[in-house]
Amino acid sequence: MPDTAQELTALRMAVDAAERVRGTTSPNPPVGAVILDADGAIAGIGATSPVGGPHAEVLALRAAGPRARGGTAVVTLEPCNHVGRTGPCALALLEAGIARVVYAVGDPNPSAAGGAETLRTAGVDVVAGVGADLVERGPLRAWLHRQRAGRAHVTWKFAASLDGRSAAADGTSQWITGPEARARVHAERAKLDAIVVGTGTVLADDPWLTARRPDGTLAARQPLRVVVGEREIPASARILDDAAETLVLRTRDPHEVVAALADRPDVLLEGGPRLAGAFLAAGLIDRVQAFLSPVLLGAGAAAVEDAGVGTIADALRFERESVDTVGPDLLLNLVPVRS
Amino acid sequence: MPDTAQELTALRMAVDAAERVRGTTSPNPPVGAVILDADGAIAGIGATSPVGGPHAEVLALRAAGPRARGGTAVVTLEPCNHVGRTGPCALALLEAGIARVVYAVGDPNPSAAGGAETLRTAGVDVVAGVGADLVERGPLRAWLHRQRAGRAHVTWKFAASLDGRSAAADGTSQWITGPEARARVHAERAKLDAIVVGTGTVLADDPWLTARRPDGTLAARQPLRVVVGEREIPASARILDDAAETLVLRTRDPHEVVAALADRPDVLLEGGPRLAGAFLAAGLIDRVQAFLSPVLLGAGAAAVEDAGVGTIADALRFERESVDTVGPDLLLNLVPVRS
Repeated sequence: MPDTAQELTALRMAVDAAERVRGTTSPNPPVGAVILDADGAIAGIGATSPVGGPHAEVLALRAAGPRARGGTAVVTLEPCNHVGRTGPCALALLEAGIARVVYAVGDPNPSAAGGAETLRTAGVDVVAGVGADLVERGPLRAWLHRQRAGRAHVTWKFAASLDGRSAAADGTSQWITGPEARARVHAERAKLDAIVVGTGTVLADDPWLTARRPDGTLAARQPLRVVVGEREIPASARILDDAAETLVLRTRDPHEVVAALADRPDVLLEGGPRLAGAFLAAGLIDRVQAFLSPVLLGAGAAAVEDAGVGTIADALRFERESVDTVGPDLLLNLVPVRS
Repeated sequence: MPDTAQELTALRMAVDAAERVRGTTSPNPPVGAVILDADGAIAGIGATSPVGGPHAEVLALRAAGPRARGGTAVVTLEPCNHVGRTGPCALALLEAGIARVVYAVGDPNPSAAGGAETLRTAGVDVVAGVGADLVERGPLRAWLHRQRAGRAHVTWKFAASLDGRSAAADGTSQWITGPEARARVHAERAKLDAIVVGTGTVLADDPWLTARRPDGTLAARQPLRVVVGEREIPASARILDDAAETLVLRTRDPHEVVAALADRPDVLLEGGPRLAGAFLAAGLIDRVQAFLSPVLLGAGAAAVEDAGVGTIADALRFERESVDTVGPDLLLNLVPVRS
């Protein structure tokens, strides 16, 4: 029988496996699974396939083969109970002779939930909640938010100087952050469902908003590019090229934007400052990713304007989820303090 | 004979001892010393007394007594060689029978230097440079800067929201940072030689700029309060009260301010934004201490204005010295990248 430290290690491996497929599994959640044999040794790892392919548990069981019998399945999400395109994972675990199932997060989807109950009824030892934080903040973050809140998860990402400016006095902004931060932004873009910018950003910076590899070539998967606002953008704008799909929304209302992206759970808002302010004022930012560069400008556009705050008591308050160094820059992840 | 790991541990203890007396030793540097006996055990710790009192080495030797014989002295600064008010420390170490001296930083003061040479000539094993970084960035930072650059060390401290604002749209700013950050600011003030603000800050915020203990009472030592600028401040301004000395400088030229504080090595600039900009543009900021609060404001005064930067290529670049969490806030220490 594996001990709980082994199971937590296996859960971390399952999270890593899920993170690698994040962005490729829609509409299914990116799940990771690890099978430990009866001695607690790793026998198989799996992660959700693209739609129509096997789920994480099934792939991990295949890799484990007969070593699954009497073993433990460690999964990031409660094994599904429904007969979708691929048959229920709970049944597959029972058929393979799994004796114990450890999972991080319960399935909030009523049509898929109940896998834990099915397994328990069949005599399997089931433990829930192991490593839940890692999963809720990690690969299942946007999917769980979509399931629970009924709308896309919106991350506002900005890069700014220490004095909160996203451009210098003359409008130049390339580059405030270092190459490490920019590479990280591109790697993340390939996993997103949509990137939102305002018409002002398109007119000022003419960005491609594509996900590029370090060598400059396009990543295999591209998020939907979304332009928001009432101003015209020229037909020659780079964001309208063939490298990825683009949606132009003739509104500045954040609620309308989020509604239009209801089937895109993982949305990144990239600004500019007034669009970010409108989303913040509307309470539609679920996470802030701040790349802070160790530079000072003393003039130039602020990262955010008009967020509806008039006095310090009404400041928009956040809780620090993580702080990391990325080359010379800092990366802060923050979530709103719900009052 | 102690090994080098023991000596580095002793050096860290000497740094801590020096840090505790920082601000009380002027014009002498805050130095820490640890005596290890011949077996490498800690026999005595000392730190510089207020002017006229014994130096760190002498206090550490007194604490060690006969255990100093054949032992090692671990000191943050090269033991002095001059006969000042208290006699040379190098001689005291020789008389106590110390066999080995380990120190972090050489004395840049020509009238005090030469202690290492005196000790070597007398047959003592002398090692320089151990833990030099800890000392140069730590308790001897301002004193060494004063010795080497011939002027005060100026730290610009600011507190801002993530979007770089030091006040909300209506001018309110109490409090952007949390109680932990504010307590740290007060503890640091008691160790400083001078705090500089502009007349604009006095007129807007009417600060006391005193160092207070957590219970609100005045700390035993208060830095000189310095008001800079050409505007009149009212006689009723809190900064003119009896709690500490105040110097009013009728200039906005950062060079004149630094010249006027030549005998105050450790100077803290607290703003406002234009005064900070002028110091930055003049190249007179030796360290930036940024307290960044996890809030967004979207409007209100920036932490710094008019720093002489027109385009991104001319951004004022800094190197991160440290990043710490202080309650909900981040504290970044940065030093200019000298180009």
